Amino acid sequence: MSLETPLIIDCHGHYTTAPAPLQVFRDGQLAKIRDPLKPDPDGPVISDDEIRESIEKNQLRLLKERGADMTIFSPRASVMAHHIGDKGVSQRWTVECNNLIKRVVDLYPDYFIGVCQLPQSPGVSLEGSIRELERCVAMGFVGCNLNPDPSGGHFSAPPLYDRYWYPFFEKMVELDVPAMIHVSGSCNPAFHATGAYYINADTTAFMQLIEGDLFRDFPTLRLIIPHGGGAVPYHWGRYRGLADMLKKPELREHVMKNVYFDTCVYHQPGIDLLFEVIDTKNILFGSEMVGAVRGIDPQTGFYFDDTKRYVDALAISPEDKYNVFEGNARRVYPRLDAALKSRGL
Amino acid sequence: MSLETPLIIDCHGHYTTAPAPLQVFRDGQLAKIRDPLKPDPDGPVISDDEIRESIEKNQLRLLKERGADMTIFSPRASVMAHHIGDKGVSQRWTVECNNLIKRVVDLYPDYFIGVCQLPQSPGVSLEGSIRELERCVAMGFVGCNLNPDPSGGHFSAPPLYDRYWYPFFEKMVELDVPAMIHVSGSCNPAFHATGAYYINADTTAFMQLIEGDLFRDFPTLRLIIPHGGGAVPYHWGRYRGLADMLKKPELREHVMKNVYFDTCVYHQPGIDLLFEVIDTKNILFGSEMVGAVRGIDPQTGFYFDDTKRYVDALAISPEDKYNVFEGNARRVYPRLDAALKSRGL
Repeated sequence: MSLETPLIIDCHGHYTTAPAPLQVFRDGQLAKIRDPLKPDPDGPVISDDEIRESIEKNQLRLLKERGADMTIFSPRASVMAHHIGDKGVSQRWTVECNNLIKRVVDLYPDYFIGVCQLPQSPGVSLEGSIRELERCVAMGFVGCNLNPDPSGGHFSAPPLYDRYWYPFFEKMVELDVPAMIHVSGSCNPAFHATGAYYINADTTAFMQLIEGDLFRDFPTLRLIIPHGGGAVPYHWGRYRGLADMLKKPELREHVMKNVYFDTCVYHQPGIDLLFEVIDTKNILFGSEMVGAVRGIDPQTGFYFDDTKRYVDALAISPEDKYNVFEGNARRVYPRLDAALKSRGL
Repeated sequence: MSLETPLIIDCHGHYTTAPAPLQVFRDGQLAKIRDPLKPDPDGPVISDDEIRESIEKNQLRLLKERGADMTIFSPRASVMAHHIGDKGVSQRWTVECNNLIKRVVDLYPDYFIGVCQLPQSPGVSLEGSIRELERCVAMGFVGCNLNPDPSGGHFSAPPLYDRYWYPFFEKMVELDVPAMIHVSGSCNPAFHATGAYYINADTTAFMQLIEGDLFRDFPTLRLIIPHGGGAVPYHWGRYRGLADMLKKPELREHVMKNVYFDTCVYHQPGIDLLFEVIDTKNILFGSEMVGAVRGIDPQTGFYFDDTKRYVDALAISPEDKYNVFEGNARRVYPRLDAALKSRGL
């Protein structure tokens, strides 16, 4: 709103509490994968009241309790599961999940705005993802979650700078929407999903962006690397040094005009480091709530993922706080900015 | 030595500058993998003078310039390449690499002490690694580098708490030697070796140790997770929260009696964070020199991997500095401690 009282926009929320019929539908899909003679499951039938209950008791309650104003809201990441079934399964599951986000946004337009999942599938072209992105943007969505590893933990997809991804990036640029780079659940026993796979994917994506020259070809493309950028800020010296060894420009020129980190780092020292090494223009407030870590930190007495507390505790200027809570989100998600402006915000 | 003037022991140095005949031998191995009709290559013939030149111009020079006293020294990690060839290839390559470390230590016993690589191979039992560990310890080596992903980037090995690893851990306990958990080069195009794969493996290993109960079965086992523990200290709140969600004891009980991080974090803010969240008894000085990042940081004018500067800059007690530079290494590597004592140190 203003520099002194910014809108608190959480860029990273998932519908982890969707009503049970969604999972019943998914179970029907999984049953048909195991036994192709089974019928296609009917789509989930979910009432507005069921949605209201799932949201008001969880994300909306916590959002208000913690003093945020709105959440950029997407389907549950850990069950996108692009590695399960074929592209048809992924397509139908994705449509159901995205449609449910649209209903949440329609019920609570002041509190939620949509980001879509994509019907990716390992080794399959991104044509279906392009169509789904178009469909969702037409419904008012402002971004997407792009899975850099649809194999679910084998990292078999080409690096993000590979031409494989280019048609999708072209569409993102055309629609002027960003992507959060976000994997789904892990089917690799080596990787705990939220403790290893997510963080590894974040780190891997950033290093791929150093290795390639993606933003030379897409100077207006915008990517959010969640979970505070994985390991990257902690190893910022390593990444600056590797860019130098790879004869790339400095990171602020090569990558950081197009890449943003969220604040999903669940303790004060981690947030302190993030803000010490990364320019505030590259940081978006996010909590991943209700998400990976749901407990209360015995050291503080507050929820681990109440990340607003950590940001509030920073000794940064009102302008920097405005940017992290509101300004950067408006810039990275222009369709969010337009939606807010249309409401006089 | 004393609390005021500790020995500066670098726990993480690789022989990345080995004389050319070692690579010629390796090339012969690779040629025979491509064409089995080729003869087995002869072992590398390397003179003491060649070793001296490779060490004195590089690791020994830098060690002295930076004010360290000695390095716990192992073969070049990025070319262990356990995914190349079969277990026979791995075995012969490993023996040559370890024998070269032994020669370095014999030439410079005051400056280097050996840690061995292991003849691992994907899906193969650790019997050969056990024998090589015994052989190297008998030659005076004080630890080993254990590769948690011999596939070279597919993470197809069982998690570290799996029984697959138990015979090796039993031997480590019997010989009272620690292991650094260290992958090799990446054959997965998704993973840049030193920018993504190394850090991911560190993070993954730590999360596996949270998921399992390895140290219940091996209360005296000691593992070093290099590169500052991957992403772990930056996300320390996440790991504390995940341990809680998994109904595990607090990390200091569950993992941190047995796990150590080195200081291979190449900028001051990262080292500051490491020491803010991790107990100094769990931190070993290390530089990974000459290694992953070889350039000079334009922000400081000093080498990125001159990590002693960052530790020196910390406002910690003389006792903590003693532990990080000397005391912890003596405790984690008892055979190093014994070797030093035998020299009156």
